[in-house]
Amino acid sequence: MNASINRQVLLVEKPAGKLGSEHFRMTNGVVPEPKDGEALLRVRYISLDAANRAWMHGATYRSAVEANTVMAGGGIAEVIASKDPSLKPGDIVFGDTGWQDYAAVPARQLSKMPKLEPMTHLLSVFGVAGLTAYFGLLDIGKPKAGETVVVSAAAGSVGSIVGQIAKIKGCRVVGIAGGKDKCGWLTSELGFDAAVDYKDGAVFKALRAAAPDGIDVYFDNVGGDILEACLPQMNNYGRIACCGAVSQYDGAPSATGPRGVPGLIVVKRLIMQGFIVMDFYRRRDQALADLQAWVKSGKLKVEEDVIEGLENTPRALIGLLAGENRGKRMIKV
Amino acid sequence: MNASINRQVLLVEKPAGKLGSEHFRMTNGVVPEPKDGEALLRVRYISLDAANRAWMHGATYRSAVEANTVMAGGGIAEVIASKDPSLKPGDIVFGDTGWQDYAAVPARQLSKMPKLEPMTHLLSVFGVAGLTAYFGLLDIGKPKAGETVVVSAAAGSVGSIVGQIAKIKGCRVVGIAGGKDKCGWLTSELGFDAAVDYKDGAVFKALRAAAPDGIDVYFDNVGGDILEACLPQMNNYGRIACCGAVSQYDGAPSATGPRGVPGLIVVKRLIMQGFIVMDFYRRRDQALADLQAWVKSGKLKVEEDVIEGLENTPRALIGLLAGENRGKRMIKV
Repeated sequence: MNASINRQVLLVEKPAGKLGSEHFRMTNGVVPEPKDGEALLRVRYISLDAANRAWMHGATYRSAVEANTVMAGGGIAEVIASKDPSLKPGDIVFGDTGWQDYAAVPARQLSKMPKLEPMTHLLSVFGVAGLTAYFGLLDIGKPKAGETVVVSAAAGSVGSIVGQIAKIKGCRVVGIAGGKDKCGWLTSELGFDAAVDYKDGAVFKALRAAAPDGIDVYFDNVGGDILEACLPQMNNYGRIACCGAVSQYDGAPSATGPRGVPGLIVVKRLIMQGFIVMDFYRRRDQALADLQAWVKSGKLKVEEDVIEGLENTPRALIGLLAGENRGKRMIKV
Repeated sequence: MNASINRQVLLVEKPAGKLGSEHFRMTNGVVPEPKDGEALLRVRYISLDAANRAWMHGATYRSAVEANTVMAGGGIAEVIASKDPSLKPGDIVFGDTGWQDYAAVPARQLSKMPKLEPMTHLLSVFGVAGLTAYFGLLDIGKPKAGETVVVSAAAGSVGSIVGQIAKIKGCRVVGIAGGKDKCGWLTSELGFDAAVDYKDGAVFKALRAAAPDGIDVYFDNVGGDILEACLPQMNNYGRIACCGAVSQYDGAPSATGPRGVPGLIVVKRLIMQGFIVMDFYRRRDQALADLQAWVKSGKLKVEEDVIEGLENTPRALIGLLAGENRGKRMIKV
């Protein structure tokens, strides 16, 4: 490598369908001069993540990547010059370096990293992948010992750590991955209790066999069909940690169905939570006291749609489904 | 009404498509004899709910309704005879009476209700509808004063109460309902800040205008297209209270997309929660300490897939999207 040349990988255009090598181009840029507040970085390791592809669709938790610019991406880099007091040459940092040899990046956008060996661990287990697995599983999934945890993209950077942490926490762990080799590796090397090969078809059935007591926590990296296969097998009060939707990233997005489930749920940190009123009945008295006070004071108006005659029940229900009623519809028998 | 005849509405067959009157039949049964532990009820009011239709699809939070039986349904009834010490003639109860004049029901499946006027309030504001609105909005939606709350089926039994409680809590409230009349009623009578007529088309745009600061809480009664229109307008950390999916009940279920979203989320009380790891970074030290200890002890194995050469970054990402990698893939620059 020539120290005065900055090799860069440009994103030539945003892919409409599948990502291919034709969407990228290598070029030789110049080594940038850091401005005040910036550090000049020598990039050591570039992280590859399915999210890189999602960034091409539009703004997510970061702005969209643009055509004809250096492809964005996280990296571990060494500071070689600094115009910010918080960093000095030799420091190791993590940040969005982009796909290039050198980058000048504002110091406030960089995280100083410990110097440990192997340095690669700063991108894997002690980096975004490890922390995503840790917080996503423990804080969102909230697994209890003895529960069944299922993770998709289980042989991937996040999934392989999710499954192992779930084992550490005493759970039964099922990984979903593509291919016999990966599945064998999950059970023989990483200690997963079972693995389901989604390329082998019949995911629903295989999952039923691998998780006979149902699923308490599903750590979703993929969305789509696998999410569909897991949903009906979730146990009551199950938690789905929506981490990513890699099945939706590469190629045209699905044309039908609730688009943005779970993509937007991830990006916007949404909670979708189902409930059944009976679960709250132990606190019914409190609710009724409030409701009665609001009705009495006139703050809450009660609208009722009372139809007379048992014989009218069918058409009253049919009409309700067509949106006829205003307020609570009922039959006076 | 003849006191010795028990008029009943039977579900003749489960509808494959839209529910119609041909799926029901009136018949004259006999007034049942209560067994030990049962009460004989004279049904006063029968509740009509979109959920009645969902019960025809299969087991939900209750077993599926069956063809050639009395149609199931909640009702307010008066005890006229009792073979259980907890109930006596004259008591008012709520329970699954079915669509009929008389029912014999186990006392443990009945809730004794206060005697208040109008009795209809026991099915509306002080019944399942009111409690569903109360707990779903306050416990699942967790609205804060000043936030924007959107509710669908807003003119319905639950929605009309949800919106009013949200106003009581100091929120900006937008109702989605079908038709000008309902929408006008929501704003002029119930105090909603705005209403969106979904029959008028362009729900997404109308919602954007009605909720210019985005949606903090969406109380979802309908699922489907309206859920889709709301999702992209949710603010970060928004909450979607999944109460029902009436758009999916009447007719064949949707053939594509994540089926069971949000239907199963409701029935199974699931939480789907999106997250981004950066939000947890204040607790990073704790996570890293755990991860380091697990790696050191051998409980957590680290798999890395390091590819050399900046020029290989594009194909490394393309391969990752195709599932080539095991563990964390990265480029050594």
